[in-house]
Amino acid sequence: MSDMRYIYGRHPVGEVLRARPREVYKLYVTDARSQNLEPMLRTAAHQGIQVVHVQRRALEELVGDVPHQGVVAAVAAFAFVDLDDVLPDVHAAGRVPLLLGLDQIQDPHNLGSLVRSAYALGADAVFMPKDHSCDVTPTVVKTSAGATAHLPIARVTNMRRALEELKAAGLWVFGAAASDDGPSICEVDLTQPAVIVIGSEGAGLRRLVSESCDTLVRIPMAGTLDSLNASVAGAILLYEAARQRGTGVAAGKKR
Amino acid sequence: MSDMRYIYGRHPVGEVLRARPREVYKLYVTDARSQNLEPMLRTAAHQGIQVVHVQRRALEELVGDVPHQGVVAAVAAFAFVDLDDVLPDVHAAGRVPLLLGLDQIQDPHNLGSLVRSAYALGADAVFMPKDHSCDVTPTVVKTSAGATAHLPIARVTNMRRALEELKAAGLWVFGAAASDDGPSICEVDLTQPAVIVIGSEGAGLRRLVSESCDTLVRIPMAGTLDSLNASVAGAILLYEAARQRGTGVAAGKKR
Repeated sequence: MSDMRYIYGRHPVGEVLRARPREVYKLYVTDARSQNLEPMLRTAAHQGIQVVHVQRRALEELVGDVPHQGVVAAVAAFAFVDLDDVLPDVHAAGRVPLLLGLDQIQDPHNLGSLVRSAYALGADAVFMPKDHSCDVTPTVVKTSAGATAHLPIARVTNMRRALEELKAAGLWVFGAAASDDGPSICEVDLTQPAVIVIGSEGAGLRRLVSESCDTLVRIPMAGTLDSLNASVAGAILLYEAARQRGTGVAAGKKR
Repeated sequence: MSDMRYIYGRHPVGEVLRARPREVYKLYVTDARSQNLEPMLRTAAHQGIQVVHVQRRALEELVGDVPHQGVVAAVAAFAFVDLDDVLPDVHAAGRVPLLLGLDQIQDPHNLGSLVRSAYALGADAVFMPKDHSCDVTPTVVKTSAGATAHLPIARVTNMRRALEELKAAGLWVFGAAASDDGPSICEVDLTQPAVIVIGSEGAGLRRLVSESCDTLVRIPMAGTLDSLNASVAGAILLYEAARQRGTGVAAGKKR
């Protein structure tokens, strides 16, 4: 169990039990009744997962002073997918690819929020460099509201090479620029197979990554502040793609 | 100085010194050189603001264990505007009103993020109920990246009455619904004088507030999760309004 992690909170643990993206070794709970955890315990029992009733203090020894809501799950380390496996799956599902590339996002709240938005707005996968990226920590899982259990997430050794390979596979790479240059996101065609790349807050896209983009786009803004928060900028780009693609507009959803 | 607050961090303090939305009583700094605070100290000196050089520990006694970056400002409590004063100013500036109403947003990061997005995307003001709303705390100021110093923010006693008054003044009130009901946000006309109302994460819009909306709209989504984060949902609605209005798309910006 060297590759074990703890996930806490009712929603993240519930999602992991539902979607089972990684093995759940054990559930630690406290105050099950007052926290209304019975349905979750029935699910765990049904799946043959060991449930350990502990004192509040024992939970906090596992995960620290966090809003655990009385439940902690010991799970296998996050199972990243291989980026090479993403496109065949997307094509097999008859979808037009929409990937989100994250260039060195290090804040777990931003990463979790971006994964949540990517899933909600119909992206097929998220990928990021192995180095200088936030790991999929419990905070990321919790901030994603469970989306890390549903959306494929890949790590790549070299972000630039990954973008070049996606371009060779027919995807168009749009980089979010902090500057006033380039077309507005509502002036480009996001209905084609596309990658949206977001840089870290503050630093933005690295130069080599920026140079690998087919088009640098900007979000139309009125204010004079530097830029939007990275997770908000990413969500707006994903929304614009969803809008252009008609995702979820009709009653019958795509997914 | 009973209505005094502390603001910390280089960016928020810098913005308050620049825009002076409230009186700055005093600046406390530590490690001015290593933190590269000299430009800020010159600005403060120029404005006749007292600067006190203190030990790191003294800063932390003021604001606690937060990322203060070596600088804390003692400022007057946040100066809310009167919602009644907003529309005349907007009309005088020849703008089509776009207001953001926040129904009981209690998380300071969400509030700060929403104010930041509202300012960046061209909203004219933010308003919220006096009760059960987050105050404009230092965390809000910091998360807003300084936008609280630029964008008018109002508090109202009764959210429903405020919405009715805005409707009587000719604004159309769009409420963000968590459900699948109602038109998609890209199917409604946000170029008209408009109020966008966002509810708190989890609870959403309160029933009476929801009933005061002219139209409940939804963000088209592909995923099966409950909803987007409140600050992301608000930003997407504001972006859609900016897109429809052509805000910031042309080289000459509106503001």
